[in-house]
Amino acid sequence: MDTLRWEQGRLLLLDQTKLPLTTTYVTCTTWQDVRDAIAILVVRGAPAIGVAAAYGVVLGVQALQTQYTVADTAFLQAVTAICRGLDAARPTAVNLRWAVERMNEKARQEAGKSVQAVYEQLLALAQTMYDEDIQINTAMAEYGATELAKLGRPLTILTHCNAGALATAGVGTALGVIRALHKRGLIKMVYADETRPLLQGARLTAFELMADQIPVTLITDNMAAWVMKTKSIDAVIVGADRITHNGDTANKIGTYGLSILAQYHHVPFYIAAPTSTFDLSLATGAEIPIEERNHDEVRKLQGVATALPETPVFNPAFDVTPHEHIAAIFTEKGTIHHPDDTTVAAVVTHSNHT
Amino acid sequence: MDTLRWEQGRLLLLDQTKLPLTTTYVTCTTWQDVRDAIAILVVRGAPAIGVAAAYGVVLGVQALQTQYTVADTAFLQAVTAICRGLDAARPTAVNLRWAVERMNEKARQEAGKSVQAVYEQLLALAQTMYDEDIQINTAMAEYGATELAKLGRPLTILTHCNAGALATAGVGTALGVIRALHKRGLIKMVYADETRPLLQGARLTAFELMADQIPVTLITDNMAAWVMKTKSIDAVIVGADRITHNGDTANKIGTYGLSILAQYHHVPFYIAAPTSTFDLSLATGAEIPIEERNHDEVRKLQGVATALPETPVFNPAFDVTPHEHIAAIFTEKGTIHHPDDTTVAAVVTHSNHT
Repeated sequence: MDTLRWEQGRLLLLDQTKLPLTTTYVTCTTWQDVRDAIAILVVRGAPAIGVAAAYGVVLGVQALQTQYTVADTAFLQAVTAICRGLDAARPTAVNLRWAVERMNEKARQEAGKSVQAVYEQLLALAQTMYDEDIQINTAMAEYGATELAKLGRPLTILTHCNAGALATAGVGTALGVIRALHKRGLIKMVYADETRPLLQGARLTAFELMADQIPVTLITDNMAAWVMKTKSIDAVIVGADRITHNGDTANKIGTYGLSILAQYHHVPFYIAAPTSTFDLSLATGAEIPIEERNHDEVRKLQGVATALPETPVFNPAFDVTPHEHIAAIFTEKGTIHHPDDTTVAAVVTHSNHT
Repeated sequence: MDTLRWEQGRLLLLDQTKLPLTTTYVTCTTWQDVRDAIAILVVRGAPAIGVAAAYGVVLGVQALQTQYTVADTAFLQAVTAICRGLDAARPTAVNLRWAVERMNEKARQEAGKSVQAVYEQLLALAQTMYDEDIQINTAMAEYGATELAKLGRPLTILTHCNAGALATAGVGTALGVIRALHKRGLIKMVYADETRPLLQGARLTAFELMADQIPVTLITDNMAAWVMKTKSIDAVIVGADRITHNGDTANKIGTYGLSILAQYHHVPFYIAAPTSTFDLSLATGAEIPIEERNHDEVRKLQGVATALPETPVFNPAFDVTPHEHIAAIFTEKGTIHHPDDTTVAAVVTHSNHT
């Protein structure tokens, strides 16, 4: 089951809003289809959003072929507008911006060539980004598994939201590490927070782990503290949507609270994220824009009302975990222990965010 | 809207599993009806369960009138069996045991009298317990409001689950304090955790506060930490299901985690509970039995699946907050500051749990 697939000039997205009970694909034929799919979480997870958006640019350029034959200034402006439109779909995860900026830059490098040639170059780059994501996941998983294997025993791990294959093109970020540990016989149990409001833990993480026959137990988010106290949790591992220069990490709402609970219970807290998740232009997490989503996400659960329709709601989709709470960040370029300005800079260097 | 009502020899229970979208009453004509209603949470909240169970004993004795005319040994054994049957409906909240023991003791005091006379005595006692609960709530609310009014400004308060009028016969425990503060013009905002799995916060607390025009904002449980960080929370106030000799407090799952988050954010953490919630026979919270409920509560909501039916689940209904995390416990007999063996004993003295 692919999270996303390019097929005959169309982007097929596994509809993650329907999982686990229904497996259907949404077919995107325009860049606006991709933007909308990202906004309503048909595709979600920072790395998967990035790759989907790259294909979204390809679809946008495909449509521009009817208007332009040469990659002139007007054409390049149209490409930039498409990139901005895709980037606006969600504000917190930075991989989205990273991906469309990379596509936009590639288009500019091809200025003056035929639009057909630019299209082919952009399609090739999107496919490269897809393939890279698979390799990045595998590398990150190995760094994480190697670090956690040092504990020398099968581990009980808590995770939040879905940082799995469904969030990426590959084996996943946090779940990639868990999969690599499982291959080494080092997973005793994974506790998966259901992750309200959109239940990515219940619908996606439990589903993914069960499909791979990795032992998993589903809990509601408010059980995490009691599980840490009573179930000997060895580590918390989660993904990330944006990491700043000092290592502060935006991730799914609830992550910040988990980091406090982990600290209280002396449980090491890990992030698994590709270097494309780092935004070195931001000094600290205080600068990260936090997306607030539709209030009905909280007032309803899978479409069923859980509160009166006029109930006032606060619905931040993300929170920020201070770097002091993070034992290490696993990236494809290595493990960042005790993340801070110095240790982050030593591993992450890429020009597009600096 | 009454949480429970005795009417023409029957107990009417507001069906809290259907709120807030549907207001219906379940009619109990036998003690087994009451036991089942408690087990499936038609009526819930430690004080309300206690009063409902007292009326359950009344219904049981009503039925015994066809078999017995005098309160002999066989009759008293039958009453004890009814009390035990009701007590078994839920294991954690001690008010249930406290209420049925009080009823059982009353029956024994009336030994030798006519069953009709015993029935009348028990009905009077159940009605006394109902009336007492209303007075207890009011007294507790005043102690709590007086304590919190010392902060000298309108307050932003976070609460969990429903410790409101729907959990009692009166104004509620934690929500009683909030109502009393609101009367004094001292409530700025109440953040209500939705409280998965059964959503008492979304369905009952938000509903109660909106009905009283007290400002409320609904959040998912995993947002509490971020709300503490970003919304200047002045206090957390929750109810309780059982409090031990040293002040350790069992309450709805998620409370323990909130107490850690409150400590981290330097937010004082308060419990509001009648003295009937104290179980002085237990030294510490480690001895409190924690109810585990049906796994479908986590896998489903109102019949809608949120995970695959075979997903393994952990579903503890309660957790235990260590007394060190509690700034004070508001009871109807006064406020217990910094609860521990000494301060609890100074306020709570009742023979039935010692």
